[in-house]
Amino acid sequence: MMRFYIMTLFPEMVMGGLSTSIIGRAAEKGLLSIDAVNIRDYAFNKHNSVDDYPYGGGAGMLMQAEPVYQAYEAVREKIRGTEDKKGREQKSPRVVYLSPQGRTFNQQMAEEFAKEQELVLLCGHYEGIDERVLEEIVTDYVSVGDYVLTGGELPAMVLVDAIARLVPGVLHNDVSAEFESFQGHLLEYPQYSRPEVWHEKRVPEVLLSGHHANVEKWRRRQSVLRTAKLRPDLLEKADLTEEEKSFIESVKTNKIS
Amino acid sequence: MMRFYIMTLFPEMVMGGLSTSIIGRAAEKGLLSIDAVNIRDYAFNKHNSVDDYPYGGGAGMLMQAEPVYQAYEAVREKIRGTEDKKGREQKSPRVVYLSPQGRTFNQQMAEEFAKEQELVLLCGHYEGIDERVLEEIVTDYVSVGDYVLTGGELPAMVLVDAIARLVPGVLHNDVSAEFESFQGHLLEYPQYSRPEVWHEKRVPEVLLSGHHANVEKWRRRQSVLRTAKLRPDLLEKADLTEEEKSFIESVKTNKIS
Repeated sequence: MMRFYIMTLFPEMVMGGLSTSIIGRAAEKGLLSIDAVNIRDYAFNKHNSVDDYPYGGGAGMLMQAEPVYQAYEAVREKIRGTEDKKGREQKSPRVVYLSPQGRTFNQQMAEEFAKEQELVLLCGHYEGIDERVLEEIVTDYVSVGDYVLTGGELPAMVLVDAIARLVPGVLHNDVSAEFESFQGHLLEYPQYSRPEVWHEKRVPEVLLSGHHANVEKWRRRQSVLRTAKLRPDLLEKADLTEEEKSFIESVKTNKIS
Repeated sequence: MMRFYIMTLFPEMVMGGLSTSIIGRAAEKGLLSIDAVNIRDYAFNKHNSVDDYPYGGGAGMLMQAEPVYQAYEAVREKIRGTEDKKGREQKSPRVVYLSPQGRTFNQQMAEEFAKEQELVLLCGHYEGIDERVLEEIVTDYVSVGDYVLTGGELPAMVLVDAIARLVPGVLHNDVSAEFESFQGHLLEYPQYSRPEVWHEKRVPEVLLSGHHANVEKWRRRQSVLRTAKLRPDLLEKADLTEEEKSFIESVKTNKIS
């Protein structure tokens, strides 16, 4: 069982965005747990506020160190109390801060994180979090991409989704996760479902042939072609045959389109 | 007013994950609208199903063309009925399909999309969507990063968040969006809030000095340093002084750390 702890000012947003669908069902089945910890519950002043002006001036407010730290301590306490931890050796959990400063998240990192027993995700809001508490508790800085969001909540949800589906049993079909995008550093081939003709567009004949080997060959070819066209940067890592490499060369020189 | 239409099988998830915080307030203020369109409402069979097996075999189910197309037609009808569209020239909306096949989303694309009056976001689920309806309605293929998610819902929410905050008036402080991560291709500097000493860590003296020019100089230096250390790939596009360039060189050769 993998346990996710999300430290956030917006627990309802996080839980609302993760409760349905595959991840929600996996939580119901006890394959994983998702726990949103409200940092505001650890505000230490009478106004229940967790933010203040930044030293040195500047627009916006900053999340203060102490409420974040107290929320983290509460998460550590929760982890100590989980069944799989009772009486076992205590190890500090990995704490991921979602930030544009971080390493750019990718499938390999998802696989690496999926090996953890628990994962703590820290969501910043406003203009960020006091640097000192980050230095003290964060083990991994992760960015989901080169764009600016209003907070770390959506990135945290993205990580939970990408990681949780790699936990054994979460997907209906364990085969699924293996053969899809990025596993082989190739994009997916086009797919078709009923009817055979839709808006005058026919399903490619080979897919109706029932000839398994030809279907696989066509799909592989489509994957290679798409990757070469749309994401040539991925091809470097892909395991291609010599024939596929020369096929790509001919596509590059526009002999085949 | 910018209008987002999200075509999805999980409208509650999308709305739940976007309703709080800054984006939610902007919607309340009438600066933008977010409308989740349930593709399942356009199922055309008695089982209310929208998915079927893929031709050619393989694991998982595929979303069929017709319900997606009918949902799209319904969105177009809604757009025609909006106040800013009545009696004006009709233009087909941009339809973004969230897919690992797409162009990798970044801040520049967010800025570009923020100029649209309306944006339709199509979320795939299961193993994807019948290729033929994608060919027919999709104008932009966008990926939020090189990782696999259970569906297009979280990526759609990421796009809405990144784009919506660029809509004038959405952020409290219009200055904010300009000076933050990626605007200048530099990462943000560390920030500090009260108290001056926390867990024996002091706020850097310069931030307490009240000397605005020195604060700016220190922050800029920190941004350059961080970017050089953590995301050297961003520096190529950054507008650096000669002094900063030689500073980075000295960091690279480990003379300064």
